[in-house]
Amino acid sequence: MNVETFFPELLKKNKRVIARAISYVESEYPQAEELLIKAHQHSGLAYRIGVTGPPGAGKSTITNQLAKLYLQNGKSVAIIAVDPTSPFTGGALLGDRVRMSDIGRNENIFIRSMATRGSLGGLCKKAIDAADLLDAAGYEYIILETVGVGQSELDIAKAADTTMVVLVPESGDAVQAMKAGLMEIADFFVVNKCDRPAAEQAINALKTILMLRNHDEKTFLPEIVKTIAQDNIGIEEIAKEISRHQDHLKKFDLLSKKRIQRTKNRIKEIVEEKLTQNLWKQENVFSFERLIEKSFAQKISPYTIAEDILNTFKLNLSQKDENGNTASISSSV
Amino acid sequence: MNVETFFPELLKKNKRVIARAISYVESEYPQAEELLIKAHQHSGLAYRIGVTGPPGAGKSTITNQLAKLYLQNGKSVAIIAVDPTSPFTGGALLGDRVRMSDIGRNENIFIRSMATRGSLGGLCKKAIDAADLLDAAGYEYIILETVGVGQSELDIAKAADTTMVVLVPESGDAVQAMKAGLMEIADFFVVNKCDRPAAEQAINALKTILMLRNHDEKTFLPEIVKTIAQDNIGIEEIAKEISRHQDHLKKFDLLSKKRIQRTKNRIKEIVEEKLTQNLWKQENVFSFERLIEKSFAQKISPYTIAEDILNTFKLNLSQKDENGNTASISSSV
Repeated sequence: MNVETFFPELLKKNKRVIARAISYVESEYPQAEELLIKAHQHSGLAYRIGVTGPPGAGKSTITNQLAKLYLQNGKSVAIIAVDPTSPFTGGALLGDRVRMSDIGRNENIFIRSMATRGSLGGLCKKAIDAADLLDAAGYEYIILETVGVGQSELDIAKAADTTMVVLVPESGDAVQAMKAGLMEIADFFVVNKCDRPAAEQAINALKTILMLRNHDEKTFLPEIVKTIAQDNIGIEEIAKEISRHQDHLKKFDLLSKKRIQRTKNRIKEIVEEKLTQNLWKQENVFSFERLIEKSFAQKISPYTIAEDILNTFKLNLSQKDENGNTASISSSV
Repeated sequence: MNVETFFPELLKKNKRVIARAISYVESEYPQAEELLIKAHQHSGLAYRIGVTGPPGAGKSTITNQLAKLYLQNGKSVAIIAVDPTSPFTGGALLGDRVRMSDIGRNENIFIRSMATRGSLGGLCKKAIDAADLLDAAGYEYIILETVGVGQSELDIAKAADTTMVVLVPESGDAVQAMKAGLMEIADFFVVNKCDRPAAEQAINALKTILMLRNHDEKTFLPEIVKTIAQDNIGIEEIAKEISRHQDHLKKFDLLSKKRIQRTKNRIKEIVEEKLTQNLWKQENVFSFERLIEKSFAQKISPYTIAEDILNTFKLNLSQKDENGNTASISSSV
């Protein structure tokens, strides 16, 4: 598939083409990078919303309802559901996405589930790449939803302009333990299933913790939004809180700062990935297999072997680049 | 602290010294690598057991009971509890470890909780480094327990000789989704809280899934161990299944293969970490901040900027190494 002929179709919001473009990114096709470089020139207009929280809190339901609300208001929405908990299946196991089929045929909505194939870090990077493609395609809102808890939430949250953390009243110990972490990434909180008895107690606890956060005049003071997502209660309040946060970011010129920081993190990630790819392409050069056997047989520490490999890699770089040219000629910065 | 005087104490199982050595690894002290290189020469005798599964399944209780059993049998045990779900607190929130205080004073047991400080990958690497130190110190069994679900489980499981996955009968949808992943890493399964009504159903489901796995004569055919860990029921059966798996690995010469593979993965990780450290040490060389602003202002893709940075890095490597020497002289492989 030729990116040149392919790309204009993506900009026209051709869903089939977008889906294929994301697959290219997901499967690390050689065309992916060219596509992303092109997409970048057309991106930056979408507003990115992160939805995170512990399993079972109702994130998918909230995401779906919120998307429907935006659609009703004449906006276009893309959903990327990131599932870091299924590392081996190679496909997302989000059965509840089936529920979305009624709006799945709508022109102005695009839904994609992404599951872990290799490393977790890789998944988050690909989800952010997919968001760039959807941004370029012209979706006004991009919702990044993550399933599960841990590092991936933080990475996805850092990629969003506004991040909401969805909790349920009786989330129990696991959530208690995580609160410290989730507090840092939440622009605001949603307490879902708030018709349950423990709701008021959970909200009061959240308020107390929120008061402990450092804040100055540039700090957004979040509301705690109460929802019963499956009855579509509180979804408009979520949209309002998102828009209130968006206004706040604009007012204090925080949005561009946030995005510059995001770009910085992405560049770092890409550089590291490319560098390690460069390294392992040369696996044969430093006889990796032989070194490992030696390490094992002679009880040489992996740290010592690692140092050897690095030195070989550096020496090799200094002599030839990956195309066999000397580095000083080929590297034009 | 001088590693030369310090290290012999570690080999003598001085708990205070071991604790400090692990802190060095955790905080990335300059002495850490020297310590690990030395420790490696004395390691390889411990048997490493991975305990994983969804939150609330009873992993800590099982780990504690199993450790007690080994102690009663005159063995020495070290527990490393890895908690990837608390990325911001900088300390592990494992309240239930308090329960262990009764055996915490025993000479032959060492317990350490490790929580995420930076990246998830980093945590797993440090936990494995800590296991090496404990191995060198002479603990016969090292139990690596992880809290939560996701990539970290896989990494920790890959670092163990025998990995058990602990489930509860009614683990619900989240676990259903994960099963595919957990299946791959489990050497055997423990169904805890098996006095609950759904236990038989859960066990039958597991049996069915286990039958679907590919196997030949070298495949270990696992039992499903039923436990009620808080009543100390089924713990001996766990120990038996571990030892049956250990015998199996030895019989088919699989243990050394597993360990060579593990060493290979570790070396890769260390090389990548060192390489990226080398890279970002030179942040000023390629004016990273300026490049990012340029990227943002001119809508240049992060991928393009990343390529620029890499080329500068390579060019720089080809001229000087980190000490300012030319690479061809300094790199002695």
